[in-house]
Parts: sequence; C-alpha cells; structure tokens
Amino acid sequence: MNIGKYSLDEYSRLAESFHGNVAPGVLIGGIMVDAALGRLNTTRLYDAICETHSCLPDAIQLLTPCTMGNGWLRIVDLGRFALTLYEKDTGRGVRVFLDAGKTAPWPEVRNWYLKLRPKRQQDLEALIDEILKAGVNLLGFQDIEVLPLFLARQSKGEIALCPVCGEAYPKNHGPVCRGCTGQSPYAGPG
Amino acid sequence: MNIGKYSLDEYSRLAESFHGNVAPGVLIGGIMVDAALGRLNTTRLYDAICETHSCLPDAIQLLTPCTMGNGWLRIVDLGRFALTLYEKDTGRGVRVFLDAGKTAPWPEVRNWYLKLRPKRQQDLEALIDEILKAGVNLLGFQDIEVLPLFLARQSKGEIALCPVCGEAYPKNHGPVCRGCTGQSPYAGPG
Repeated sequence: MNIGKYSLDEYSRLAESFHGNVAPGVLIGGIMVDAALGRLNTTRLYDAICETHSCLPDAIQLLTPCTMGNGWLRIVDLGRFALTLYEKDTGRGVRVFLDAGKTAPWPEVRNWYLKLRPKRQQDLEALIDEILKAGVNLLGFQDIEVLPLFLARQSKGEIALCPVCGEAYPKNHGPVCRGCTGQSPYAGPG
Repeated sequence: MNIGKYSLDEYSRLAESFHGNVAPGVLIGGIMVDAALGRLNTTRLYDAICETHSCLPDAIQLLTPCTMGNGWLRIVDLGRFALTLYEKDTGRGVRVFLDAGKTAPWPEVRNWYLKLRPKRQQDLEALIDEILKAGVNLLGFQDIEVLPLFLARQSKGEIALCPVCGEAYPKNHGPVCRGCTGQSPYAGPG
C-alpha cells in the first residue's frame, strides 16, 4: 500500500515525526489525500481546502506542496472531515470526504468517527487495522468548483506601524493593529 | 549557524521541501522559533500561537512539535509577524516578534518587511544575506501569559449527521452543518 509517493511505513514515520503519532485521522487522511491526488489528475498548479482543523491538515501538508505558511492550504472550518484539491486558475477540483454511510461494515471506524464510544474505550490497533483494510471504500468523492471569492489570493496590502505597540501590520486592518484592539490572546499588553 | 536542531543548510533543504522555497519569512521565522525555544527554557509541554498566516507557521511546524493538525499550533491572525511559545498548563511563555525599529541598519530587510518596494524590485540575495547577518538582532522579546480562554482545549463535543448532506459534523455547530448553511466555499451543493 502506498500513500502519496511513500510506502505505508515511510508515511507512518513521517506522520510520527511531524504530527507526533500515527493518529487514525492522519492515516485515513493520508489515504484521502492520495485518492484526491489520483482523481485531480492535473498538470496545473493546485491549492487545497481542508474543512477541519483535526489531523487532516497535516496529511495535506505531508503529501502535497500545500502548507499553511505558503498559503496553498486554507482551512475553512466547516467541521467536516473532508478536503478539496483544486486548480488554482479554474477552481475546478475534487472533494474527498469520509463517508459516514460507508462506515457501517467497519465498527471501529464508525465508533471513532462518530464518537460513539469514549476515546479510552476505543481499540486503537483494531481501528488502524480497519482503516488499512477499508481504505478508499470509506470515502466519498465530489467534483466541485471553488467560488471565485475563495480563489482570489488575498494580499496583505500596504503595511503600517501600529501607533500603540509599534509593530508592523496590514494597514487595511484599521488605524490600530488587531493585537491592540482587544484581539490579543495574552493577558496585559503584548 | 544553527536553526533549531538543524544546520543552516539542513534547515534550508527542509524549508525548500516543505514550504517550496527558502522564503525570507521562513528563514527569519526559523531564527525566531530558535530564539523562542532558547528563551522558553522549559521541560513542560508547550503550545504555539502564530500571529500571521504568512510563512511563520511553516517555521513553527518544522522546528517544534506544534502543527496545525495536532492542534498545538494555533493561528490567531493579528497580522503581526510574531509567534509565542507557552507552557500548556501555566500559559506562561515567550513572544518573539520581528521588531520594525531594529530593521533600520538593514535596508533590504526593512524594504521587504514594510513593503517599501514592490517585490520584483527587491534583491532576494542581499535580503537573505542581511537576515543571516542580522539574525536575532532583528527581534524583540516579551514574557507573556496566554489568557485562560485560549488555553482551554476545545473539544468537538458530540458528533451529528447533517440532515442535508449526510456528513458527520460537531453537533454544537447547530441543527445543520456549516457547509449546508451558506459557509461552503464551493459553487452549488458540496
């Protein structure tokens, strides 16, 4: 079994080193990205949308050129375990989701995915085994077109110096940076 | 010069493979993360906050155990080129920012950081050279305490099946998933 350009073992080692462990979500996530890459089947540059913060962003970052920091991966938090790869210029692409309806023959996957049992009562080994056996049979696919609004690369625009903290920030955020207008996650100034 | 546990060459290769190129933001970002790690100086588990989407998240993901998919890295988009590493339990940590005031002796860094010249008029080689020479002299540091609200691990809670698309989503998003209530980035259903 290959996941992207890696063997299962290689991918597992990568996941361990990057994500911290071979979590079920990173494993099925890898299978999803692999399937999306196969179906996208384009020679053009592509971007990625991930519909969840959980695990899946790391599978995308490990298996595609799309990362959070280079702007090719965007998380649109719809809370669904799904990703989309799409051509940058046309917006056409493929969406892959973990299909709840297809988990029926795989009780451990179903328990994990729908959180039917608390985590400590789940059997991780059996779950990983089911994910590897079921593979793409757990997935659903859709051809999609990304809305123009999401295709446009958002430029930071002009840079200003915040009159309060003195740091550089995008001028279009307003006369004062967001950190100095109550959006800072820190106690006190900073 | 070392960046985290890597030599400059090793880090550059990593950045190229993960981010796509050794962008100025990933290079100074690596120096920032390295400096933050040195100053955090803790044996406890730590999390990361990144105040920008640009480049810096990749430096954090390459040099710390914190990634987007494992939830240890969170982007709080304040538009400032800054990151914070903090102890998960106490919230105490160190914030590192690229200090605009300290860029005065480094014209290429200043041009790039404050966008004083269009990108095509910037001298990438000279910029990289200045970043390597200036290093931590470009940075500012603050001891911070992360607000309790940001410390709490947000659980997805119970999972429901969306009555419209049939996919699994966090029940606390409402009776219908976000993708089916106008927040989807795709044209038509999906």
